[in-house]
Amino acid sequence: MHATIEAFSAETTDKSVLTDEAVDFIDRYWRAANYLSVGQIYLLDNPLLREPLEREHIKPRLLGHWGTTPGLNFIYTHLNRIIRERNQDVLFVCGPGHGGPALLAQTWLEGSYSELYPEISPDLTGMRRLFRQFSFPGGVPSHASPETPGSIHEGGELGYSLVHAFGAAFDNPDLVVACVIGDGEAETGPLAASWHGNKFLDPVRDGAVLPILHLNGYKIANPTVLGRMNDGTLHHLFEGLGYEPIFVEGSDPARMHRRMAAAMDQAFDLIRHIQTASRENAMFGMPRWPVIVLRSPKGWTGPKEVDGKKVEGSWRAHQVPVAQVREDQGHRRILEQWMQSYRPEELFDREGRLIPELRALAPEGDKRMGANPQANGGSGRQTLCRPDWREFAVSVPRPGGVLSEATRFAGAYLAEVMRQNADRRNFRIMGPDETCSNRLDAVLGVTDRAWMAPIEPGDEHLAQGGRVMEVLSEHLCQGWLEGYTLTGRHGVFNCYEAFIHIVGSMFNQHAKWLKVAREIDWRRPVPSFNYLLSSHVWRQDHNGFSHQDPGFLDLVVNKKADIVRIYLPPDANCLLRTTDHCLGTHDRINVIVAGKQPALQWLSAEQAEIHCAAGAGIWEWAGTEKAGEVPDVVLACAGDVPTTETLAAVDLLRRYVPHLKTRVVNVVDLLTLQHPSEHPHGLADAEFNALFTADRPVIFAFHGYPWLVHRLAYRRTNHVNLHVHGFREEGTTTTPFDMLVRNELDRFHLALAAIERVPGALQTGAHAVQLFRDTLIKHEIYVCEHGEDMPVITDWCWPANSGNAEQADHEPGM
Amino acid sequence: MHATIEAFSAETTDKSVLTDEAVDFIDRYWRAANYLSVGQIYLLDNPLLREPLEREHIKPRLLGHWGTTPGLNFIYTHLNRIIRERNQDVLFVCGPGHGGPALLAQTWLEGSYSELYPEISPDLTGMRRLFRQFSFPGGVPSHASPETPGSIHEGGELGYSLVHAFGAAFDNPDLVVACVIGDGEAETGPLAASWHGNKFLDPVRDGAVLPILHLNGYKIANPTVLGRMNDGTLHHLFEGLGYEPIFVEGSDPARMHRRMAAAMDQAFDLIRHIQTASRENAMFGMPRWPVIVLRSPKGWTGPKEVDGKKVEGSWRAHQVPVAQVREDQGHRRILEQWMQSYRPEELFDREGRLIPELRALAPEGDKRMGANPQANGGSGRQTLCRPDWREFAVSVPRPGGVLSEATRFAGAYLAEVMRQNADRRNFRIMGPDETCSNRLDAVLGVTDRAWMAPIEPGDEHLAQGGRVMEVLSEHLCQGWLEGYTLTGRHGVFNCYEAFIHIVGSMFNQHAKWLKVAREIDWRRPVPSFNYLLSSHVWRQDHNGFSHQDPGFLDLVVNKKADIVRIYLPPDANCLLRTTDHCLGTHDRINVIVAGKQPALQWLSAEQAEIHCAAGAGIWEWAGTEKAGEVPDVVLACAGDVPTTETLAAVDLLRRYVPHLKTRVVNVVDLLTLQHPSEHPHGLADAEFNALFTADRPVIFAFHGYPWLVHRLAYRRTNHVNLHVHGFREEGTTTTPFDMLVRNELDRFHLALAAIERVPGALQTGAHAVQLFRDTLIKHEIYVCEHGEDMPVITDWCWPANSGNAEQADHEPGM
Repeated sequence: MHATIEAFSAETTDKSVLTDEAVDFIDRYWRAANYLSVGQIYLLDNPLLREPLEREHIKPRLLGHWGTTPGLNFIYTHLNRIIRERNQDVLFVCGPGHGGPALLAQTWLEGSYSELYPEISPDLTGMRRLFRQFSFPGGVPSHASPETPGSIHEGGELGYSLVHAFGAAFDNPDLVVACVIGDGEAETGPLAASWHGNKFLDPVRDGAVLPILHLNGYKIANPTVLGRMNDGTLHHLFEGLGYEPIFVEGSDPARMHRRMAAAMDQAFDLIRHIQTASRENAMFGMPRWPVIVLRSPKGWTGPKEVDGKKVEGSWRAHQVPVAQVREDQGHRRILEQWMQSYRPEELFDREGRLIPELRALAPEGDKRMGANPQANGGSGRQTLCRPDWREFAVSVPRPGGVLSEATRFAGAYLAEVMRQNADRRNFRIMGPDETCSNRLDAVLGVTDRAWMAPIEPGDEHLAQGGRVMEVLSEHLCQGWLEGYTLTGRHGVFNCYEAFIHIVGSMFNQHAKWLKVAREIDWRRPVPSFNYLLSSHVWRQDHNGFSHQDPGFLDLVVNKKADIVRIYLPPDANCLLRTTDHCLGTHDRINVIVAGKQPALQWLSAEQAEIHCAAGAGIWEWAGTEKAGEVPDVVLACAGDVPTTETLAAVDLLRRYVPHLKTRVVNVVDLLTLQHPSEHPHGLADAEFNALFTADRPVIFAFHGYPWLVHRLAYRRTNHVNLHVHGFREEGTTTTPFDMLVRNELDRFHLALAAIERVPGALQTGAHAVQLFRDTLIKHEIYVCEHGEDMPVITDWCWPANSGNAEQADHEPGM
Repeated sequence: MHATIEAFSAETTDKSVLTDEAVDFIDRYWRAANYLSVGQIYLLDNPLLREPLEREHIKPRLLGHWGTTPGLNFIYTHLNRIIRERNQDVLFVCGPGHGGPALLAQTWLEGSYSELYPEISPDLTGMRRLFRQFSFPGGVPSHASPETPGSIHEGGELGYSLVHAFGAAFDNPDLVVACVIGDGEAETGPLAASWHGNKFLDPVRDGAVLPILHLNGYKIANPTVLGRMNDGTLHHLFEGLGYEPIFVEGSDPARMHRRMAAAMDQAFDLIRHIQTASRENAMFGMPRWPVIVLRSPKGWTGPKEVDGKKVEGSWRAHQVPVAQVREDQGHRRILEQWMQSYRPEELFDREGRLIPELRALAPEGDKRMGANPQANGGSGRQTLCRPDWREFAVSVPRPGGVLSEATRFAGAYLAEVMRQNADRRNFRIMGPDETCSNRLDAVLGVTDRAWMAPIEPGDEHLAQGGRVMEVLSEHLCQGWLEGYTLTGRHGVFNCYEAFIHIVGSMFNQHAKWLKVAREIDWRRPVPSFNYLLSSHVWRQDHNGFSHQDPGFLDLVVNKKADIVRIYLPPDANCLLRTTDHCLGTHDRINVIVAGKQPALQWLSAEQAEIHCAAGAGIWEWAGTEKAGEVPDVVLACAGDVPTTETLAAVDLLRRYVPHLKTRVVNVVDLLTLQHPSEHPHGLADAEFNALFTADRPVIFAFHGYPWLVHRLAYRRTNHVNLHVHGFREEGTTTTPFDMLVRNELDRFHLALAAIERVPGALQTGAHAVQLFRDTLIKHEIYVCEHGEDMPVITDWCWPANSGNAEQADHEPGM
């Protein structure tokens, strides 16, 4: 065992694959990148220090992070060599937060930056602008961001670099994704789980991920957990995770260049070996992919000491190592010496251009990591074939005439999407082990679950190359699909509604990425990120309070209106139409909430098409208002269960308060409720009033927290008459109907609310009121005794006098 | 190395520490627990099968999860032996979701259940009720929950068992926390990071955590990642994580009892050895704590096969292994045979009581894991000594007369809390490496940062036994503090505002736990969970969009009003008073948002006391209304930066539109805005109107997303005149003031909004309007050119003609 450790230890990677001249060139290129990085953090002007450094050359606010930067420059420079020597496609994922200066310096050096931003030209003028714009108003952030060429990964919130890297590598067999992971980020949960991506990556059809764990030892003010592990411990850890670690450690640049070059060669040789062997059927099972562990000083090549305190190799190098350069001449002198230590005169010519010998070290064209086409939405393979969703529609001869599981129909449709795109390999379904539970199992008739670990007798639908990704980590599902869609491919993430909160923060960051990316002209549109939230709050009665929470929707509507959509299809055909629509969109985050339990079906395919296109509409067949009249009360609904309850309430009212004129409005596209000044899907005020009236009471049965509807509709004329019933945090373990009763979202409470709000109806409907209240009490007693809902509830169908709905065959397409 | 693996392999733990008789007893106890578990899942009646099993004995809805249960029962039974033999305090954390039947069975067997729930008596009547209540309306959930004796951990959302275990072990030197981790849960990110808790646990002053990784191989429908790793790989993994793994593997009960007993002895011996050596100063550095890896079949001892398909040892055993028992006589027969296979007649007497010989196997009194005092808020050590916060107050001779960093004063106060409670060891501060950055570094003058890994020259304030916990994982910070407070101790979690979203889901689950726990009479109140969110959205200008998001507050208000509080102290003294208040509360989640940057101070300690006690109030000294008059416009504010901008806006209005009568209302306690029917802190309508008027325009400058204020205040009379300015998702990298301008939360936009909303003021204030608009344009130009805000903005102080504020000495207490 120890022999193995030594075989990969720092010492053995010291053997040279580089000539002295090559080392010198690589070192100069690295120095150029470091010089440009320091310049960005500090300088407003005098970029090549051709005059003495004065106060006015220094930025008034010193922002940016030096600590991680030289290591990133070191890695990027060595990847350049590999790319050139092997003509390899490499996508660079920059995990360390605030690594912006390095990526900006490197893409400027290789030319990809100036191609996209011509005003930041590859000369002295451009260099000055490159420096000035960094962390400057109107400029660019201090971390990798949508503005950064070649990036698919924001360096703000830490934890997602490696999962993004895997997402990008799936179905990109010629790509190596080099993913730098800071030792700070390595402490996070999502990153710790991401290592298991190797159990799902197919060496035949997927590309490779090369993790580079960059241990510089310190976070903001502390050492790091992984940085303080010794090589032996790290070797065990990576062996346990299924990787082959290659250690590169030191601080002397010349020796480190040799070690890193050898390590890179070793890693890329191993990758090639694995891929060749797998693709020639000479290797089975999970390969041990390489990981490079790079130990280099934090703030490497920066000031050793400032004001008597150690800087290089300590946490003090994290941000701006010499802080008082504007005010303090001594500090300014340190900065000047530091920048001159890179000997810019050996790197840049009179015009400020990188000298030709060094320029020759960068790859060319699309091989430059800043120009990698995958980082910009992939190269022309975004199109997803979509079948006609109507072929999967459930036959609904009359509203409420049939009982079906909505997501099962979506599953059949998604299976056909999978089938039609099998050759393109551009569609995946992610989920935390719930694909079957969510009734999407039809997709497993077309493909398998991705699985590289051993397969045992009794396992079902597991295979290398499967396109359904199931892992009990919402973080991995989310991150993989982000990486996959940002590189131009398509997918759906299906999840329990309550547990999607786990990735609330990742959702936020992805929405931010999309918002900024849309504003950048050179970024191509990328397929939307699609959530299908099933096992929703109203059918988690059996799992109890811990599984009940519809609050993800509240989080979603905080994001920019251009980016987010929320759909609450009331039945299977609306779900089909919505799913199909979402798969055809780009640059958005679509959230679909739909149940998986047998439920009454309301709309035919034709009706669903019209209703979903409008986003919200009156269901004339359901209410009792007469044409041309204004109803006494509007019963509105959004969500499948609230829709059923609303129709049952209207049914009760029809039977027991027959003179009450009711209208039913169903909302599929939740953001139609918002004012058009706030959301592009918002209904015009006139349209809104045409649905909800300007002055009649509206009893709104809502899937989520009731205040969300108030928040969306607070600018509407009739807002004051809006009475929303929804989840009021009264969760528990009980029956489905009792869950509704506890939150007053059931048919009886809705009908009672309608009666209470219509002037005079409490008197004329007194009998009904008594009957509904009595029934609620009877139900409560029944549930406590029998542990299930009263048959009168579970057998109800629409309209009440029509007899039972037929149980639809669960095979869709009938 | 291989020798080491073998030393701990399954074979070597087969040697017996048990007599044959002991094995028999343990096996019978285990069978009793398994019998009771199956009974809970299936039976309404006929609990001891003393009559033939009929349809009416079966529950109408079969809910609950068998798969994980026998393994949990196995572990619990063996822990009982250890507890008795060693008189050891053990807290049991049940990671596997839906492990409820096991915990309910075990606590009923040991008697702790019936003590807390006398109606579930330790006899046949109680057994019948125990079965009936499980996953039944009005009963208990199918996973460990607040209703479960001995539990501090909800088994709903997976990932947090091990981090809770560490939180409970901190400062509980005599406690061993036995934490069962399912192999499903082990795939999650938070769990994967939790293993690193060993780098922070002090063997001298903390207790021990014994992780028991329970590999039963399958999730809902899939094998698990860790379950498919072989022992060698797992051994490497745990060696890399710093643990000593002990493997127990098999399915033959008798052999497995012997192996498990040996493994438990080995683990508890090792724990005792580590603790003794550390406490006698014979051991330094991070110990290698034991972890038990238990491989047992999923659904162990359940039906081998149902309808020709394998059940025991497969994913089909996950939930209810024989599903049609009510309808299908064949299935019912399988169930009957299965239950009879435990030979209940050997386990329970005629009255349905556990036979005395078996009862003797359970620990007694508080040693029973269901009665462990730590699981119920700790034993009488909750009280936290709090100094008088006024001693740390900043002197504010006049409003706006001094410039201070609010959190620095909170840091001095917290340092004194730390000092006064040093002996009790009941207070910790958690944060992702931001304690100093958030200006709380005074606490490091009293204690250190917890650190068990090597300490190197140049490290500062790292020590074994430190009480500040810094790790770059919000999940760990959150989970540790949850475990710590649920066992009766106190703490504060300080974090960047934007990144607190990472633990949004954990917050949700903790709020749910508290909601249910408060309703349970035997649960003691536990100290509140306190967030201090600094580095907030308005001062993340330099870090850019990825670091800007105030949406956590929106998530918080979704939870039950009894549980959540949100405080937005406008200055240092209000922050001090709020922090002190929060530390004195229980059973709540307090969220405090406060800046760390130098800012003008408004209230003296006396004023802060009065203002914070009210939660919201008029700042008479700030507005221009005369006593007895109604103002033309109310300028309301919540949050430190919005408060400063509001005061600056009022200042502008006073100077340039002098006839406008303004009122300034500041809101500290955000939930005062909500209606008292919705939140206990909600102001009565009359109070609300007294502050905000019933009909005047209100320009509300809000720290977070503007719609949150609408959502809170939509029931208020004057809601229609409420115009909220807040974060509109216009984030970017820029200057602090430009961030405000982009979101129209700056003084000029606020003043303009006030003028626009007061009838006639646009005419009389035309000059001012022009001036403000011009200034905004000038500012924009200045920022783009200089990269910093105009001096006229940064130098502003209140009131404008009073001269500059003094820079307060940063030492509080002046």
